[in-house]
Amino acid sequence: MNFKKLANILGKIMITMGALMTVPLIVSLIYGEGIRYALAYIIPIILEVGIGFLLQIPKPDRNSLFQKEGFALVGLAWIIMALFGALPLVIGGDIPHYVDAFFEIMSGFTTTGASIVTDVTALAHSTLFWRSFSHFIGGMGILVFILIFIPESDDGSSMHLFRAESSGPQVGKIVSKMKVTTRILYLTYLGMTLLEIIILLLDAPIVGYESDHLFNCILTAFGCAGTGGFGVVPGSIELYSAFSQYVISIFLILFGCNLTLYYLLIIGKIGQIFRSNELKVYLSIVVVAVIGIFVSLIGRYETIEECFRHSLFQVSSIITTTGYSTTDFATWPMVAQSILILLMFSGAMAGSTTGALKVSRVNIAFKGAYIAIRKLINPRYVPKIQYEGKPLEQKTVNDVFAYVTLYLFILLVVMLLLSLDPINTQTILVNSEGGVTYEVTHGFYSNFSSALACLSNIGPGFEAVGAYSSYAGYSVFSKILLSFTMLLGRLEIFPVLILFNKNTWTK
Amino acid sequence: MNFKKLANILGKIMITMGALMTVPLIVSLIYGEGIRYALAYIIPIILEVGIGFLLQIPKPDRNSLFQKEGFALVGLAWIIMALFGALPLVIGGDIPHYVDAFFEIMSGFTTTGASIVTDVTALAHSTLFWRSFSHFIGGMGILVFILIFIPESDDGSSMHLFRAESSGPQVGKIVSKMKVTTRILYLTYLGMTLLEIIILLLDAPIVGYESDHLFNCILTAFGCAGTGGFGVVPGSIELYSAFSQYVISIFLILFGCNLTLYYLLIIGKIGQIFRSNELKVYLSIVVVAVIGIFVSLIGRYETIEECFRHSLFQVSSIITTTGYSTTDFATWPMVAQSILILLMFSGAMAGSTTGALKVSRVNIAFKGAYIAIRKLINPRYVPKIQYEGKPLEQKTVNDVFAYVTLYLFILLVVMLLLSLDPINTQTILVNSEGGVTYEVTHGFYSNFSSALACLSNIGPGFEAVGAYSSYAGYSVFSKILLSFTMLLGRLEIFPVLILFNKNTWTK
Repeated sequence: MNFKKLANILGKIMITMGALMTVPLIVSLIYGEGIRYALAYIIPIILEVGIGFLLQIPKPDRNSLFQKEGFALVGLAWIIMALFGALPLVIGGDIPHYVDAFFEIMSGFTTTGASIVTDVTALAHSTLFWRSFSHFIGGMGILVFILIFIPESDDGSSMHLFRAESSGPQVGKIVSKMKVTTRILYLTYLGMTLLEIIILLLDAPIVGYESDHLFNCILTAFGCAGTGGFGVVPGSIELYSAFSQYVISIFLILFGCNLTLYYLLIIGKIGQIFRSNELKVYLSIVVVAVIGIFVSLIGRYETIEECFRHSLFQVSSIITTTGYSTTDFATWPMVAQSILILLMFSGAMAGSTTGALKVSRVNIAFKGAYIAIRKLINPRYVPKIQYEGKPLEQKTVNDVFAYVTLYLFILLVVMLLLSLDPINTQTILVNSEGGVTYEVTHGFYSNFSSALACLSNIGPGFEAVGAYSSYAGYSVFSKILLSFTMLLGRLEIFPVLILFNKNTWTK
Repeated sequence: MNFKKLANILGKIMITMGALMTVPLIVSLIYGEGIRYALAYIIPIILEVGIGFLLQIPKPDRNSLFQKEGFALVGLAWIIMALFGALPLVIGGDIPHYVDAFFEIMSGFTTTGASIVTDVTALAHSTLFWRSFSHFIGGMGILVFILIFIPESDDGSSMHLFRAESSGPQVGKIVSKMKVTTRILYLTYLGMTLLEIIILLLDAPIVGYESDHLFNCILTAFGCAGTGGFGVVPGSIELYSAFSQYVISIFLILFGCNLTLYYLLIIGKIGQIFRSNELKVYLSIVVVAVIGIFVSLIGRYETIEECFRHSLFQVSSIITTTGYSTTDFATWPMVAQSILILLMFSGAMAGSTTGALKVSRVNIAFKGAYIAIRKLINPRYVPKIQYEGKPLEQKTVNDVFAYVTLYLFILLVVMLLLSLDPINTQTILVNSEGGVTYEVTHGFYSNFSSALACLSNIGPGFEAVGAYSSYAGYSVFSKILLSFTMLLGRLEIFPVLILFNKNTWTK
């Protein structure tokens, strides 16, 4: 294990973290939040930059990274990010308990959006900013970001980092140079976020939040870009105008696409975009899910338009594993809830900022099942199945099956461990839309959907962890467990599991 | 497709079915249930034997069966068995609606034990017998039974049938001749069932059912042998003595073992038994699950012994996918319920009469995940992992991953389709132990556990489909859906899916 090189890169990450934390610091200063909130960022910045520079001192014997080192580095880096990222929330006093803060910021970086905050109006502007900014940072991945500034090496080190941090069954470069690839992806990401902010600004401010219009638009766009989902005002997106809700829906669907598709768009290869198998399946799922939920909601809201809007919004929000909500979907008819549960498994496209299995894995798994049946029918059958313009290799299919199996096993184990929590079978009061309060019991559905919503990086689940509830009631143990569950989901399992194998750390 | 040969074998199955139905006919005559109950068996017997002989007429050009023909035959045979097996329930009048009867007998043959019957005391003895007898028949598989009487052919036809109908990731012969293998397995099965009947007879009869002692013991043993779980008296096994409950628990654990282990026992190869990886893991899971549930139940029942007995019983019953119950486990603490949910996924050993994934698949999946991580750490890693004394091949691992993925997908789709049922969100009254009535809502937990309990051939689920409830409230659509879900579980997916691929039916 090339510990010195690892230390160097971890140091770079800490310095970058320190640099990024100056942004919420500036927000804190602009809003004049006082010395405590300023220190909440200044102290971690000093720590991060200090430790970061110390970690630059060891001179590695070897400059390259093996695959295992790349994966372990990504796993470690994300844990360190969350450990330090939690500090401002504790020091500022908005989330006084460290485990709660760790949960909250892990939820931010992993773009989950599960929250232990019960009232966002009690949070300082800088805190709200840091939460949403963590979505924006975590969406694309911080190591991928650092790659832009690291001198290109051709030994595959950067590719290992990129593979470990990016999402989907097959990760490839767009252009031959890794650095250029990451720069293109980051610029696309930034450009789309800016565009969304501008369009949201066109709308009238939310009533009661007139002075924060720009602030809210920026934070909402961060949540969309990273497909995170932390709310900025009470009730998530409920108070936003219908116009803004449609805009957010559409941007969510766009952020659920593989970002390389936008590169193809820019360089004019539009034909290639529409040949993407995954895009077709992704959009088909969106359409079918919206129709299914829409039909089940008819008569539930005042107008047909509202039924459609809530359907479109929630499908966009859940399939992209964002978790924003315009209404309390945990009270919807069971068929609508079940459709959302299926979307919580699928997620959106590989190469996007979304979580869950990804549409491509679901798609490949179905093709794999078809191949298995054809081989049973004729043992000499040679599959000629194409995927994304290339023959679908059996190895890819096997990797997908392995991933889905691990996903299920982790889900079940987390669900079991959550069932140990004293919160189980407690009755919880939920304040839904319009101030209506109803009772839910924390039972199997809560544990199952908590585990799934964290593993798939969605945020809200159902029953006692619905959109109008929070994760505040869980024990310290469950919060730590769910924090790591989110990380397993965000990094697609292996960079986290690799940390627990002794062979990672030995020659 | 060798349709003529298929017709011949299907004919043999129908004649066998007719022969097997004479047993409940005799029961009906012994108990003097009158002409209607007698006709309930006589009419199907005439139909089955008549059609069975007609199907012997076509002379096949080729005597052998290809793999696809073996698999399709098994799928078809089981559907036909249930279609005809439902007739006595309808004609006798005990289950007047055909879909209900189809559901009930499919549940019987697949050894699921999910029931639409709300009061077993309203059923005739012959009906009770036929339900439990169907567990006994379905447990080992009827095609495997017929193999005993079909002249051995060395072209692999019988092996295809055996593979399609038996359970587990790897199916092998015990001895070189298929016919001898199946005979050994059937004799073991029969011997163990007889032993259980004798031991149960040693106990005093259930109070109020003194005259039916032998009858009840036989039916209870049938339910254990097939790991089916249809109750014979109200409250499943609740009214049985502690002695009988322990006996049943132990026999359930024994029937959850690979039946070939008993052959090894008989021929004295005891060392080989204890080298079985799967047996060790299976027994470890049982021990851990019993301890976990036992701890969670302390204080819930009057004595510690009772807590232990319910824990042991329910773990035995659920891991073997039987579904018998001694108490209403749907009201247990969430951790106990969650442990049972995990057991509903695992099931017991391959080569037993149990359903679900099987311990070997879970075990191989874990080893496969370990291999995947080791390969990530060192791409040149060559796994030297043994399973059951042989090197674990990557193909076996891949097949297991594929199976688990398909299992999950089927589970989710069935859950989604069940959510369309009008029963959702209805409140259902459940009569629990001691006549206590409580209300449950039919929601996600009910749909999820229905789908899982049918796919894993368990029977009762949780919430509105708990041990003290029934599947009676589901719509016709849901009952048909769940019937096929049970069949998918019993035949391990492929023999059913193959029927829906057009390439099965063309050259």
